[in-house]
Amino acid sequence: MSRLGIWFIGARGSLATTATVGLGALAARLVDTTGCVTEHPDLDATGLAAYDAIVVGGHDVADTPLVKRAEQLVAGDVVPAALLAPLAEELERVERRLRPGLAPNADGPVDQRADAERLVRDLREFAADVDRVVVVDVSSTEPPHDAGADAESVAALEAAWDAGRAPLAPSSVYAYAALAAGCGYVGFTPSPGVDVPALRELAEREGLPYAGCDGKTGETLVKSALAPMFHTRALAVRSWTSINLLGGGDGATLADPAAASSKTRAKRSGLDAMLGHPVEGPMHIDYVEDLGDWKTAWDQIRFDGFLGTRMTLQFTWQGCDSTLAAPLVLDLARLVGRALEVGESGALTELAFFFKSPLDTEEHRLAQQWQALTAWSARCADRVRP
Amino acid sequence: MSRLGIWFIGARGSLATTATVGLGALAARLVDTTGCVTEHPDLDATGLAAYDAIVVGGHDVADTPLVKRAEQLVAGDVVPAALLAPLAEELERVERRLRPGLAPNADGPVDQRADAERLVRDLREFAADVDRVVVVDVSSTEPPHDAGADAESVAALEAAWDAGRAPLAPSSVYAYAALAAGCGYVGFTPSPGVDVPALRELAEREGLPYAGCDGKTGETLVKSALAPMFHTRALAVRSWTSINLLGGGDGATLADPAAASSKTRAKRSGLDAMLGHPVEGPMHIDYVEDLGDWKTAWDQIRFDGFLGTRMTLQFTWQGCDSTLAAPLVLDLARLVGRALEVGESGALTELAFFFKSPLDTEEHRLAQQWQALTAWSARCADRVRP
Amino acid sequence: MSRLGIWFIGARGSLATTATVGLGALAARLVDTTGCVTEHPDLDATGLAAYDAIVVGGHDVADTPLVKRAEQLVAGDVVPAALLAPLAEELERVERRLRPGLAPNADGPVDQRADAERLVRDLREFAADVDRVVVVDVSSTEPPHDAGADAESVAALEAAWDAGRAPLAPSSVYAYAALAAGCGYVGFTPSPGVDVPALRELAEREGLPYAGCDGKTGETLVKSALAPMFHTRALAVRSWTSINLLGGGDGATLADPAAASSKTRAKRSGLDAMLGHPVEGPMHIDYVEDLGDWKTAWDQIRFDGFLGTRMTLQFTWQGCDSTLAAPLVLDLARLVGRALEVGESGALTELAFFFKSPLDTEEHRLAQQWQALTAWSARCADRVRP
Amino acid sequence: MSRLGIWFIGARGSLATTATVGLGALAARLVDTTGCVTEHPDLDATGLAAYDAIVVGGHDVADTPLVKRAEQLVAGDVVPAALLAPLAEELERVERRLRPGLAPNADGPVDQRADAERLVRDLREFAADVDRVVVVDVSSTEPPHDAGADAESVAALEAAWDAGRAPLAPSSVYAYAALAAGCGYVGFTPSPGVDVPALRELAEREGLPYAGCDGKTGETLVKSALAPMFHTRALAVRSWTSINLLGGGDGATLADPAAASSKTRAKRSGLDAMLGHPVEGPMHIDYVEDLGDWKTAWDQIRFDGFLGTRMTLQFTWQGCDSTLAAPLVLDLARLVGRALEVGESGALTELAFFFKSPLDTEEHRLAQQWQALTAWSARCADRVRP
Repeated sequence: MSRLGIWFIGARGSLATTATVGLGALAARLVDTTGCVTEHPDLDATGLAAYDAIVVGGHDVADTPLVKRAEQLVAGDVVPAALLAPLAEELERVERRLRPGLAPNADGPVDQRADAERLVRDLREFAADVDRVVVVDVSSTEPPHDAGADAESVAALEAAWDAGRAPLAPSSVYAYAALAAGCGYVGFTPSPGVDVPALRELAEREGLPYAGCDGKTGETLVKSALAPMFHTRALAVRSWTSINLLGGGDGATLADPAAASSKTRAKRSGLDAMLGHPVEGPMHIDYVEDLGDWKTAWDQIRFDGFLGTRMTLQFTWQGCDSTLAAPLVLDLARLVGRALEVGESGALTELAFFFKSPLDTEEHRLAQQWQALTAWSARCADRVRP
Repeated sequence: MSRLGIWFIGARGSLATTATVGLGALAARLVDTTGCVTEHPDLDATGLAAYDAIVVGGHDVADTPLVKRAEQLVAGDVVPAALLAPLAEELERVERRLRPGLAPNADGPVDQRADAERLVRDLREFAADVDRVVVVDVSSTEPPHDAGADAESVAALEAAWDAGRAPLAPSSVYAYAALAAGCGYVGFTPSPGVDVPALRELAEREGLPYAGCDGKTGETLVKSALAPMFHTRALAVRSWTSINLLGGGDGATLADPAAASSKTRAKRSGLDAMLGHPVEGPMHIDYVEDLGDWKTAWDQIRFDGFLGTRMTLQFTWQGCDSTLAAPLVLDLARLVGRALEVGESGALTELAFFFKSPLDTEEHRLAQQWQALTAWSARCADRVRP
Repeated sequence: MSRLGIWFIGARGSLATTATVGLGALAARLVDTTGCVTEHPDLDATGLAAYDAIVVGGHDVADTPLVKRAEQLVAGDVVPAALLAPLAEELERVERRLRPGLAPNADGPVDQRADAERLVRDLREFAADVDRVVVVDVSSTEPPHDAGADAESVAALEAAWDAGRAPLAPSSVYAYAALAAGCGYVGFTPSPGVDVPALRELAEREGLPYAGCDGKTGETLVKSALAPMFHTRALAVRSWTSINLLGGGDGATLADPAAASSKTRAKRSGLDAMLGHPVEGPMHIDYVEDLGDWKTAWDQIRFDGFLGTRMTLQFTWQGCDSTLAAPLVLDLARLVGRALEVGESGALTELAFFFKSPLDTEEHRLAQQWQALTAWSARCADRVRP
Repeated sequence: MSRLGIWFIGARGSLATTATVGLGALAARLVDTTGCVTEHPDLDATGLAAYDAIVVGGHDVADTPLVKRAEQLVAGDVVPAALLAPLAEELERVERRLRPGLAPNADGPVDQRADAERLVRDLREFAADVDRVVVVDVSSTEPPHDAGADAESVAALEAAWDAGRAPLAPSSVYAYAALAAGCGYVGFTPSPGVDVPALRELAEREGLPYAGCDGKTGETLVKSALAPMFHTRALAVRSWTSINLLGGGDGATLADPAAASSKTRAKRSGLDAMLGHPVEGPMHIDYVEDLGDWKTAWDQIRFDGFLGTRMTLQFTWQGCDSTLAAPLVLDLARLVGRALEVGESGALTELAFFFKSPLDTEEHRLAQQWQALTAWSARCADRVRP
């Protein structure tokens, strides 16, 4: 049976740690598959890697041991305490496969080519033990970044590097390394990652698949179910207010307005598309330390009905971001692993179901995304790699 | 241009009055088409009756003049005051076409055949001035009613009538009359209406189309958008609590537990189907006089995610039932009118989009219902009556 | 230092178990005093029993060991897991002091005098080791019960018992025993308990204090803070809808409409008093098994302002009934213990702060209740038993 | 009978217009006194001006006729349409008493003394027809403003004006004029107004009463009822998130972060005081044009109970700011008018009930403020001007 490697960028973060613990628990049949989309009966799982045939490794700039991170998640009510003891050994095994990430504020000039080469070596070493590798970026959200003309093509990027420039955002250096090492790639954050022309060209040239960006886990998920309801019922949405409160590492990152703007841009993008017109309304992401990994979202949708009647829908979402996202990350790795196996390349638009800002498609409606995903899974099931 | 007649059962109720006022306002271009599904660009409106080619009549047991009912709706914040003056004449015209309904508590034995024949005469008189008629039941919800063996076939029904029995619920007598008069039929309430074997057989024999039942206007609409979200994301819904508060005529009717049970049964039916398993949770419809025609619904959905994480979604819906339902009633009349024209007969399952308990289909998911509706509209557009 | 005994009716229930665990944790300084009103700086705690000078015993009809009940509460997210090990011995000690309660469905005729005498023996045995005892009823809510003329006086009660009748509700048999044994009494449920004339007379005669009834822990607490706001601002509350969802033992009891009616009557009683007029609106208590000991309450308050403007306040309360109530139970035992010590007798109206239906007072407003409580605590602090 | 003049700063704004219409409606007995605190039976209204003995005038920089503003408020669902016709003449009378306010961006140097003198002349002219005047600032919120050493005393202010400086915020120029003209003063906005040392000294010297600042009408009102509940129950509030959405003129002003910061500072100030410690949590005021004069506030309060249990209270407030505030403005004018009559001077701390940031008192708890207010009303009732 073929073995799949998942390589996390941000392997010691809440999400990656939860996914790693969860994968171990699934492999050991300690938990059921609630939340795992690839276990849905309407999705054809033929050829997807079994949980006990998936191996985890990754990069991180932090060095808190994974076991300790898991304990913190238990304290924060994210991971059940009962999983720690049976999975301790597995976490130790993953620990040994983790490698240092790119130092955020390096002294002196940054040599992105050298950085990328080091990352590629890490990936190749990891890949030696498995049949294929999917790199999944779950690290902290970066501020918006314009890589400019230097990233317009592979050639331009090489030239920039030759000239000692460092045009890429860190997430894109990781994405470059993933492609250079022959891996599939998933951008689960709103960071640029693979979404610059040079890297897109590289993926095309290497025949590698990728998916992104920004996991659709909570409030935006609800939006993608509700907005089509208003649209097909010809109800006129006048304002849509979105409040997101969260603590934890993600909340702290997003307390930085620059990083938050990446996120709110991603959250906003789909709404106007689904409603067919721009809609006013504030969108906040606020850091409330007390909430930890638990997110509360409150949305108020003001809409007009027939004869101008003013009506309102409000919803409150109380969810745990890490456990919402963790199974999706495993799903994506399995699906992109399958895409690698059957030779799909480029942006996998059929995986839009998982993302706030799906690459290369304007389809944000959840039901339509689901149909595209299940149809794609059936097509992949029929194929074998030449 | 062909003319369509809409015949309301319950023509003086909040909903029919709002629909009548709204139709007049649309015909006179005093309001826009917000809330009118048949105006959606994805739906092929070829052949649908123009608003100024639609004529309204109806039955009602009440005798409050329509103009006075409209004034009450203005007072209750349902209909804009500015519409009354320009539509006064039109309301007077409709007033003259209204006929007495079936007296609810007749003294002595009920002669349903005679009742039906009287209703048929009313309908034939109305039909003389238009090309086709759709009867729409928007009267008060009846308690559950078992018509039994007497309604198993047209023959059994005739025999029961011959024997002096009165097996049908009043809503079904109206439905019988509609079919006997060659009309299309829409059951917009949870009352039995056309949904008894004898009447289904009659519709089949006469080649007449019908649709139902129970308009999906508010909380159940939201459910049909949200439940598939949980299902496709493999999230495990553990309980779904539904609270409905409303005043007005509908609220007063539903304060009667027997009538309410028809409604909650309808509201419940789809949820379990969409989630794939039964879900616990109370469902209340409460009469709060103070709310008038305005409904507040509050739902709490408790669901488990990955690793057994307990999460919650709550929503609050504040809508005006009459203005939510009125455009749908007009939509349904136009669509069933079109079905009559192109020769469709039997239960129109493609109109499930509009109903809490769609006849002859288990499809409750809003997005799939929308696709079925738009596809059907395209098919109808291509056809001409032989 | 004087020792206080708390005797729980329903000693193995969620609330008593949480209170017992909590008391142990307070005595061992394993937790802080959050939620403990008697620790508030504005309340004079002079003379209140120290936590490590309080001893717990009680009656219960169930026989699940206390340690096992505590484990269940850990599983239900009510009690922190970390408390179990350090308190195991203490729970064993309490276990040995628990005695069987009154069997609910005794075969043959009930001899309430014999029942009461047995309970009195249990109480006297317990009282031997402490300076004074407060009996606290935290058992399941009983349906409304009319003890009738047989309970109009002690003499009538004795005569009824002589005649072989059993006029008292079980909660009142416990209350009788408490008074007969010279204990203070707290009715923390809406059951009749001490609130029948014969028992009130007995308490008066014995010079014993009591307090009740029905602990004000969640939604009603919020009401008693909000209703005065509307009243003093001259805003006209038109309807107040109250939805209570809970699982757990209490929820199961209240799924019985008879028991629930005791509760909703208690919840309703204060609202009209605070607003100065009756207010419409449904009040539901629904059993949702999935929620366990966690309660969700949703209230919608519709009010009119100046010029008839229609406005709305809604609130959602998500709390754990057992941990909300447990510290109040300890507070009440300490306060009634102090009342015993300083010779207060009869209904302690100054403890209204703790109750949904405070005995012998119509004061439901939280702030005024707080002022009465703190003033009383100061008065008690100044006194020594003659 | 003595006549009271109300002079509005911002006389053409939503609030002043609503108050003016409302006063007319009260005087003509077209509406009841819902929302009028001074009509509460617990408040002693002896000596308060009758509604038909109150005359309105005011300053405004805008020149939209009052009748037109009233029509806009009818369109925005703030004022009932039925009031316009009967009050048209009264609005015309008020219109004739309105005078131009201080131009916001005057060309050339600002001469605040000359400005103030002009305002004083307007006030004196108005005062000629009534017995006493209360100036009420209901104009747009100003950004925080530090008047500095120039406003430390009357002498310093005079010196600064002599030197050609203009140290005061516009709201303080109005307040200066009010005092110089012998009027009482109410600061209903968070603007500085009378709250600078020089003006306080002036009021003291002139023996004039004033009250402020920032009307407590909605979300903060609810806070002042709820925060004491948490405090007296010894529940530990960990975070309190406050979201305020509103359109209309006030919303547009507060869309400016500088102005909003005045407001959020006022809203925040009381919470920490009531809870006894600082509490984290974002506080937003967002402009949502679609909402018009209607405000939606959503608050989430996260609190810990006994044994560290994490619990939550959320509330949603949907109110109309103008009709909430209008009766309070009339109340304040009547009360400060009475204070003038009986010779009270300085900051009226007993009116804290009405304000987010009551001057010269740290009492933010609604119930305690109410007790102070009613006690003061009784004291004033007993007095006659020497």
